[in-house]
Amino acid sequence: MSAPDEAAPANAIRTIDVIRRKRDGCELSPAEIAHLVAGYTRGEIPDYQISAWLMAALIRGLTRPETAAFTDAMLRSGEVLDLSEFGGVKVDKHSTGGVGDKTSLVLAPLAAAGGLIVPMISGRGLAHTGGTLDKLESIPGFRADLSLNHFRDVLRACGCSMIGQTAEIAPADRKLYALRDVTGTAESPHFVCASVMSKKLAEGIDALVLDVKTGSGALVRSEQDTAVLAELMVEIGQRMGKKTVALITDMNQPLGLKIGNALEVEESIEVLRGGGPSDLRELCLELAAWMSRLGGRASTIAEGKEFADRLLRSGQALEKFRRMVELQGGDPAAIDDPNRLPHAKHRLDVPSTQSGYVSSMQCERIGTACVILGGGREKKEDSIDPAVGIVLRKKLGDLVSAGDAYCTLHYNSESRARAARQLIAQSYTVSDEPPAPRSLVHRIIGSSHL
Amino acid sequence: MSAPDEAAPANAIRTIDVIRRKRDGCELSPAEIAHLVAGYTRGEIPDYQISAWLMAALIRGLTRPETAAFTDAMLRSGEVLDLSEFGGVKVDKHSTGGVGDKTSLVLAPLAAAGGLIVPMISGRGLAHTGGTLDKLESIPGFRADLSLNHFRDVLRACGCSMIGQTAEIAPADRKLYALRDVTGTAESPHFVCASVMSKKLAEGIDALVLDVKTGSGALVRSEQDTAVLAELMVEIGQRMGKKTVALITDMNQPLGLKIGNALEVEESIEVLRGGGPSDLRELCLELAAWMSRLGGRASTIAEGKEFADRLLRSGQALEKFRRMVELQGGDPAAIDDPNRLPHAKHRLDVPSTQSGYVSSMQCERIGTACVILGGGREKKEDSIDPAVGIVLRKKLGDLVSAGDAYCTLHYNSESRARAARQLIAQSYTVSDEPPAPRSLVHRIIGSSHL
Repeated sequence: MSAPDEAAPANAIRTIDVIRRKRDGCELSPAEIAHLVAGYTRGEIPDYQISAWLMAALIRGLTRPETAAFTDAMLRSGEVLDLSEFGGVKVDKHSTGGVGDKTSLVLAPLAAAGGLIVPMISGRGLAHTGGTLDKLESIPGFRADLSLNHFRDVLRACGCSMIGQTAEIAPADRKLYALRDVTGTAESPHFVCASVMSKKLAEGIDALVLDVKTGSGALVRSEQDTAVLAELMVEIGQRMGKKTVALITDMNQPLGLKIGNALEVEESIEVLRGGGPSDLRELCLELAAWMSRLGGRASTIAEGKEFADRLLRSGQALEKFRRMVELQGGDPAAIDDPNRLPHAKHRLDVPSTQSGYVSSMQCERIGTACVILGGGREKKEDSIDPAVGIVLRKKLGDLVSAGDAYCTLHYNSESRARAARQLIAQSYTVSDEPPAPRSLVHRIIGSSHL
Repeated sequence: MSAPDEAAPANAIRTIDVIRRKRDGCELSPAEIAHLVAGYTRGEIPDYQISAWLMAALIRGLTRPETAAFTDAMLRSGEVLDLSEFGGVKVDKHSTGGVGDKTSLVLAPLAAAGGLIVPMISGRGLAHTGGTLDKLESIPGFRADLSLNHFRDVLRACGCSMIGQTAEIAPADRKLYALRDVTGTAESPHFVCASVMSKKLAEGIDALVLDVKTGSGALVRSEQDTAVLAELMVEIGQRMGKKTVALITDMNQPLGLKIGNALEVEESIEVLRGGGPSDLRELCLELAAWMSRLGGRASTIAEGKEFADRLLRSGQALEKFRRMVELQGGDPAAIDDPNRLPHAKHRLDVPSTQSGYVSSMQCERIGTACVILGGGREKKEDSIDPAVGIVLRKKLGDLVSAGDAYCTLHYNSESRARAARQLIAQSYTVSDEPPAPRSLVHRIIGSSHL
């Protein structure tokens, strides 16, 4: 029992009033939102008050100024990196997550090769989607848990570094993310926006390119919700003085052909060598072009794509990747010889029973099949198997004959392979007519402000 | 944060799903509601999940079957008293809570003096409203935490006893009440109904008079929500075989003149001596008359009021109160000498800046000002200061000149007094015309079933 606080200021904000006002649908002031976030981070406001507020805010919604204030308060709960010592323009890219999306592994070294500084703080696999850190850690010796000082050293030495969230970066987001997960308040575009943007803005960047996925493999699926989220993030980024654009891109099928941690590193290296599957390569060029445009290295997207293409073909981007891997403790020889990456013991083809065109793929199921093989986590404590995964043989619009392989599973456990195979067989639909072609980039949001 | 349902069987009800379904506006099954109530009571579901659910249920609402299931689950979380050993009729009164509402302190001894048995299980302050137990505990030595055996002994000796919820009585409500208070989820007619009726039905009573407050100081404010609450409670009471009526009474200004724990004991004693402010005295007589009518001691309300008036004037009701206080460990001398009650160190008048008639009072703010002074709790762990409070000098319709005191604060902390003063200054509206007079009792619900 605590005694009444003699020192309580006369017009202090009371947590209970802030909860009630949001419950009643009022717009909160930045000071009220800052009170909640700072108090929660310091452990002064208990979980049970914040979860009531989160539920009220999820149902009543947050206005744009409230979302901005929420993001700002989370950002200021921790350290904001000062990277002014670096001469170059600091640019990052963030994806909302999908299946086979390994663009970050290509883009960080590619943009660094183009003269930009890329201080990238990434995440791990979530639900059916893969995580950049899990992929990088399949490279023998690679460390993603660097201190901020070590992070700066790597940035200084090669222009890019890729690490996980440290204790110093947006600690409020860390606490709130865990609470949202268990209180039914994860699925709000406003909360997702504040969570992503508070971390990205803490990186000390000048510009940010957002890749917001839409479709059957995205976390936020509908085109409408995706647009709300993309617009919110762009507005918050721009409001905070960062050049920000969002590309809404297709996730109705996996990106590229390889899914699984070491397999995705392999495919990223193919792109960094100037090759790789055309959809993955195309999206990397498009995103790299936007990073160059925002970073002042290209005046048009066409020019930016051409610039990026040269950096891939010349081997300069690959060299940056090799250097970053080495500086973060990884084996640089694995970049040149993919046999040094982990490989699964067994292969199994998943055959089609029909002939025709692949007309749809349930992309979330394919991602889940990779998790089942051991490539992702079903519970937080699970360890992952970096070697396993899926290599696609057929994608949307491809012609298939009965008996042809849809894909090849790379696996280490028979029972897991059986479960994954069954799920994948249910993921493909084959029809007599080919599906209408889809563009990879659906919309670009925020470019009119540039 | 670990998900509490991790080890649950595959088809068990998962807390997170129940939260999500209410968040999305679905009707929950009795089994889902029982899962929440039982799991929370056993400590298996944490505060932060229940507070998220409470907020979702407050905003989305509960249906009548959901409210009945919620009441039933709370009642069944504990013991139901068997008071059949007592010859008299067992009648209780319950108020939904307001500002300055100390009628319970008068009514329990008054009804007992009239030959009824009053086994009253009361609550603590909730939001801006005061709590009967907090008030009683300002009497030196008074114990509200009696065992059920001790409770029976006091009932046997003097016909009334007033205690807090024991561990045996509706333990689910006990936990939920404390949580609702600090999470902005106190003000739902469905929660209020379930909370009140689960406790009252556990008391082993024959009849129940409900005082349902409406207006700016009530927990449930609008006349419409108040009627919903009153009808819900009467329906549940009658369904369980108890004679139940509800009086909808005015709470657009505090009841009586004194607000704060010891101050309200003082004013209750004034009424028990046959005096006191007329509104408080009138409501006590009206409620006592309904208790007599339901308990078979009066055949009309007029007769019941006359009977109650005699019991006050004769000192019989005061004698019952003195006896009950003594039997529950309190200092009976404090009943005769209010100087023995706690007193605040300082006094401060809150002056009017205008002249005219008091045309409205924001009663919730006045209650909140008392909480700010230390007379109530902002967090559930807070202790309260029994001495502090507010003595009103002006009420609705009173003529006021600029500089006249609206009220006098009794306080122990300067900074708290400043905050309370500011809030109260904003609570009064002064106009050239007096407000239309209001009746104290707006409606009576359930009397047609008698």
